[in-house]
Amino acid sequence: MHQTFDAALELNLLHANQSTADRNRALFDDWGITCFNIMSSPGAGKTVLLERTLAELSRHSAIAVIEGDMTTELDADRLRRYDVPVIAINTGRSCHLDAKMVAGGMHSLEHDYEPADFDIVFVENVGNLVCPAEFEVGEHAKVALLSVTEGEDKPLKYPVMFQEADCLLVTKMDLAPHLDIEIDRIAENVRQMNPHVAIFPVSAKTGEGLNAWFNWVRLQVALRQQPAKAAALEPSC
Amino acid sequence: MHQTFDAALELNLLHANQSTADRNRALFDDWGITCFNIMSSPGAGKTVLLERTLAELSRHSAIAVIEGDMTTELDADRLRRYDVPVIAINTGRSCHLDAKMVAGGMHSLEHDYEPADFDIVFVENVGNLVCPAEFEVGEHAKVALLSVTEGEDKPLKYPVMFQEADCLLVTKMDLAPHLDIEIDRIAENVRQMNPHVAIFPVSAKTGEGLNAWFNWVRLQVALRQQPAKAAALEPSC
Repeated sequence: MHQTFDAALELNLLHANQSTADRNRALFDDWGITCFNIMSSPGAGKTVLLERTLAELSRHSAIAVIEGDMTTELDADRLRRYDVPVIAINTGRSCHLDAKMVAGGMHSLEHDYEPADFDIVFVENVGNLVCPAEFEVGEHAKVALLSVTEGEDKPLKYPVMFQEADCLLVTKMDLAPHLDIEIDRIAENVRQMNPHVAIFPVSAKTGEGLNAWFNWVRLQVALRQQPAKAAALEPSC
Repeated sequence: MHQTFDAALELNLLHANQSTADRNRALFDDWGITCFNIMSSPGAGKTVLLERTLAELSRHSAIAVIEGDMTTELDADRLRRYDVPVIAINTGRSCHLDAKMVAGGMHSLEHDYEPADFDIVFVENVGNLVCPAEFEVGEHAKVALLSVTEGEDKPLKYPVMFQEADCLLVTKMDLAPHLDIEIDRIAENVRQMNPHVAIFPVSAKTGEGLNAWFNWVRLQVALRQQPAKAAALEPSC
């Protein structure tokens, strides 16, 4: 009985969250913004990836960041150095950003800036490989990071994140020579459950693979802004 | 209004969990078992730590493992090679073990074995640096792992786990030479919020620090089984 109540309640919470996420997405669409939800375990390299990405993409695109952390603005402060608006959301004891929190971030963006001037919003979620995958925030694409140090079995053990991802970045490739890990097994394990996910091995330290990631982001933005032209450019493989 | 309802509900859930956890702990006490709750991000090395620990401690202690994973018995199968009872709990979409799940594991232990014959139960929690810290399962000690690859800022950003831990293992020390990380800062950041936590830098690969961890576990068991004698042995520093 208690379990049934919990399950019904969880469904209600997820349903309410989905409605708010859909409203957020419609507002991003009105503004002409493509929104990416960046998710991973703690310490897989979300913030350093965003640092590299802002340095490259902000030369030609207007970018804002909604930065989720349980406490502190340590990551938000790192990203503010790249001269883009960074809206920090502290989730307190909550283990993920939900759509209502991101709606609050969008409200701040609207209050302080002209949102239609922006092309991209990156949402950096709380470090957690489980819960953020359950709560859409209004994103157009879900990006998961998995560090090579976490092991090739993680997609099998934490499947929801890897089923939901549109793009998987296998990070910290510079450490791979020091580990007993088969990188190909990560891709095999993920493609078993999500055949169409884009997978890029990257290292923020050496720069390996980052251009492929930047181009994937550019393509998602172009597909939304100029769908016919961008589709012709999309690689067929 | 919605938020107030959520907060009240969360308190009810945590309160119900705590009652079950207290019952679990009392049952462990009746059986003469010391229970350790092992928690960390995915891939920080909980299972390999338990492999090394079972290999060493099962020579003189009777040990069982309650192994939590969202899906698969991959980790449970690794630990079964050490010839100890391993009770696997799949949590489905749940991001942590709760006290009721562990009570189910204890019931299995009681059904298939004589629990009073055991000295130690290790509970390996779901890989998640946030949620498991909120839900006691009936343990006598909380053990947190933080891999050096996760970065020295994590205790500040995910404080609850580090406030609650009785012991912190800083894992994968063999990778430290390849990283820009100040190990001392991890200890400083944790001791700011939890001055009495035991901290051991370890590497399951090289064996660094493992004896200190084994001795800490032995001491916790001895303090419960022979408190006066063990207290005299406890290091004063």
